[in-house]
This record gives sequence, structure tokens and C-alpha cells, in this order.
Amino acid sequence: MSVLIVGELINTSRKAIKEAVEIRDASYIQKVALEQEKAGANYIDVNCGTRVYDEEETMAWLVNTVQEVVTDIPLCIDSPNHKAIKVGLELHKNGQPMVNSITAEKERFNEVLPLIKEYKTKVVALLMSDEGMPDSAEDRIKVVENLLPRLLDNGIPAEDIYLDPLIKPISTGYLAGQEVLQTISYIKAKYPDVHMICGLSNASYGLPNRKYLNRAFTINTMSFGMDSYILNPLDKESMCLIYSSQALLGLDKHCKQFLKIHRKGLFED
Amino acid sequence: MSVLIVGELINTSRKAIKEAVEIRDASYIQKVALEQEKAGANYIDVNCGTRVYDEEETMAWLVNTVQEVVTDIPLCIDSPNHKAIKVGLELHKNGQPMVNSITAEKERFNEVLPLIKEYKTKVVALLMSDEGMPDSAEDRIKVVENLLPRLLDNGIPAEDIYLDPLIKPISTGYLAGQEVLQTISYIKAKYPDVHMICGLSNASYGLPNRKYLNRAFTINTMSFGMDSYILNPLDKESMCLIYSSQALLGLDKHCKQFLKIHRKGLFED
Repeated sequence: MSVLIVGELINTSRKAIKEAVEIRDASYIQKVALEQEKAGANYIDVNCGTRVYDEEETMAWLVNTVQEVVTDIPLCIDSPNHKAIKVGLELHKNGQPMVNSITAEKERFNEVLPLIKEYKTKVVALLMSDEGMPDSAEDRIKVVENLLPRLLDNGIPAEDIYLDPLIKPISTGYLAGQEVLQTISYIKAKYPDVHMICGLSNASYGLPNRKYLNRAFTINTMSFGMDSYILNPLDKESMCLIYSSQALLGLDKHCKQFLKIHRKGLFED
Repeated sequence: MSVLIVGELINTSRKAIKEAVEIRDASYIQKVALEQEKAGANYIDVNCGTRVYDEEETMAWLVNTVQEVVTDIPLCIDSPNHKAIKVGLELHKNGQPMVNSITAEKERFNEVLPLIKEYKTKVVALLMSDEGMPDSAEDRIKVVENLLPRLLDNGIPAEDIYLDPLIKPISTGYLAGQEVLQTISYIKAKYPDVHMICGLSNASYGLPNRKYLNRAFTINTMSFGMDSYILNPLDKESMCLIYSSQALLGLDKHCKQFLKIHRKGLFED
């Protein structure tokens, strides 16, 4: 097992990306994509969900632009809109794409499922239903038991499914982290072949020193079995902690990957 | 609950301390003690176990020297030798001292127990018996079940006991971290009032990039219930991760301590 890293930086909700997309500055987008690949990302996330009026056209441009320079790793096509996802998947060239995301919401499930099947993608499955954001570990587990069997019954292999427990800010409820950890424990014990993924920055929302909270929560969640992260791979400290944690949790046989990454120079200060 | 930090730096196995002790350089020792207190240590560890010929005299000098400047937090008297421990405890002035350590080894248990009782100390209890270093989670749990009831039966309050699972290097056995985490889970579930503590540097011994391994293992172990660490509090990144993890694990109600530490400026880069 190796932790899977999805580089999150190409997202039009970030100011620099928003501006680069507006003027179709391909070289800036390509620079950010290559930096993430070099830093150890396994997937490059592409998200232009803020561009509601031309998301499909922008997705096409982004996917093509990134693929001009990134040829060794695949993309994560990130949108709540199945049409934009389809555009991205049609243009996708290298390796197995990832879709972010499907949910248990009826409409979204029905729209996104055919794409996952047709393009044989990996898929991020958010633990969200038509009842809205989950409010407790129990809520999340209910969604797991509704969503996961339906994905499996539709022929999606367990190892292509990445459940996202949906982290809420601990600033608005200090037990929010614990709820997520309980959910992870449950999934790990009952569905050991299914992956778990999350975006980290929600947990720290509204608090100062967010980078420390994000790093710590990576290791908290890994300790219970999360194995995939949507994060900024240019935060070297995070990446070093993840490789270290992988070795310490006994997931890196004879510390081989740890030593390989060391030889690549990724640990240097 | 608050994580308890024992500052580890005053140890004659470290070259700078060894030299300062040799020439009785009180001001250097006091500087290191004060720096650790300022960085957030709750206890200052004092260890001169390498000075086998004059450990008791050195312990007396160290305890007095540190206490001249550190008056708000207590010391952790750290020695395998009950005579040196007794010297340290007799001179101890501020708050409840900690003894590092007792074990399940017959002779050491019988020598150290009376001191813990007499001076009403906190105590680090290593999971080591006359059969030697534990080799698995099962070995450690066997020692827990032998050592802990004897401490409790002798009137040592659960909340004064700090079990140390004895971490071995993952470089010599890549499942060593996992064994410790299993031990922590067991203790946490069965004896929720007892504390758990460890020194971190053993896990990373023999590998490069040790600081990342040490930081990650702090958060791995905290995730399962360890609540006390013997570490270098001047490693700010470690301290920030610990305060963050405490908030994320739901152990810091309404993130009060996190915000207090933020206001003190301890998170600044």
C-alpha cells in the first residue's frame, strides 16, 4: 500500500489559477501541474467549478493544457457537474482517470455513475445524501451503507472507490475530527479493500495556524486507515510526514519507499 | 486532558550537556532548562546516567542548578539507579516530581516503588520485565497486566502512572510501530485513567530524516491515546503538531488551549 496524493492546486477557486484561466495563461497552469508532479503527486486535480457559465469549455482547455506537459500521471476530473466531468474524461489520455465526485444524492448518483462505468475511472464518493451534510459518525455510516453497496453492485471495483467522509471545521464543533476518525475506523474494519480520501482544509477552517492543523489531521486520519489525500504537495512538511507515517504504521515494507524517497532528495530541508 | 511534555534535553548522553556538566557550567544548563520551559515543557527531565561513577553527586548538582531558575514547573528525575533518584527527589522543590522510571524487573521494582510512595511522585513505568525487552504487542500487554495492578495495589493513583510501551526502531523491524500502536489501543480501552508516555527517538533510529519520523510518530501514537511525550520541546514543529492534534482529536474543548497557545505566539514561524 502506498498513500495516494492528489495535487489540489489547479482549482479556479484559488486566485492565481482563476486569473491564469481568465487570460488562458497555459504556461502558468503547466508550471503548477509540473511542480505538483515533481513534488510527488500521483494525480493532478483539475477543478473549474467556479466558472459556472463556461465550465465545460474551461475544463477542456485545462485538461488539454495540463496533458501537454504532464504525461506520466493521470488527472482527477473534479466537478459537481456531470457534463464537465464527461468533457474531461473524453479528453483524458494518460492512465486511469479519477472522478471527483459522486454522492448518494439521487440525481448526482444517476448522472455520474454511467461516466465512471464507461471510462472505468477511480471515483471519489462523498458521504452525502439527499438529506444533506452528515452531522455525526452515525450519519456518515448510514450513507456508507447506502452508497457503497450500490457502487459495488454496479460493478465498480472496491479498489477504485475512494470514500470521502466530509470533514467539517472543528472551529464550529470541536468533536468534528473525532466523528471522522470513527467513520474511518468503521469503514476500515468492514470494507478493507475500499480506499478513503479527504480534502484537508475544511477541518482547520476558521482557525489560525491552519497548516499545522492540516498536517496533524493527515497523520491522525492515516493512523486509522485513510490512505489518500487531496492536498498541496508543495507543502513538503506534509509530504515528509505522510511518507514517515506510512513507514511507522507498518505500511511500507522494510521502509523501502521511505528510503527511495530519501534517495530522490524529497526529504531535504 | 492536556498533552504532557517532558523536555528531554538535559541528558549527559548529549555532548553539549556532558561537557557543561564536566566543567559545572551552571549557566548553560540553566539556559537549556529555561528554553524548554518557555517552549511549553511541563516537566524538565534531568538525566546523568552516563556518569556511572558520580551519578548521585551530579544529580544533586543538576537538580539544584535547574531549580535555581526553573520555579514554576517540576522536574523528571531520570535514572535507572534508585540511589540517584532518591538524591533528586530529596532536593526537589516545586510541584509534583516525576520519576523515570520503574519497570516490572523484580529488583528495580522493589527499589523504586518505595521512593514513588514516599515522595508521592508521578512515575514512568517501562513495559520491561526480567524477561527483557518486549518483542510484540502481546509481550507488552503481558507486562502491563503484571506491572500495572501491582502499582495500583500499592496505592499509586492511576493518574500518576505513565506507561511507556518501549518503542523499537522500525529500521530493524518494520512492524515495530504497529506493535506499539496496538499496545496503546489496548491500554486506552482497558485502563482509561492511566497515562501513556514515550521517548520518540527510538522509532527512527538507523533511518535518515529522523525528525519527520519522530514528528509523525507523535501524532500516530496520540491518535490512539498516548498523552505524554519525552521530547525536544525546542522542535517547534513537533509542539505545533501536538497542540493541533489535541484539538483535532476532540481533546481540547472548543479549541481553547489551541487558541491560548496561538495568542502566546507559540505557533509563529
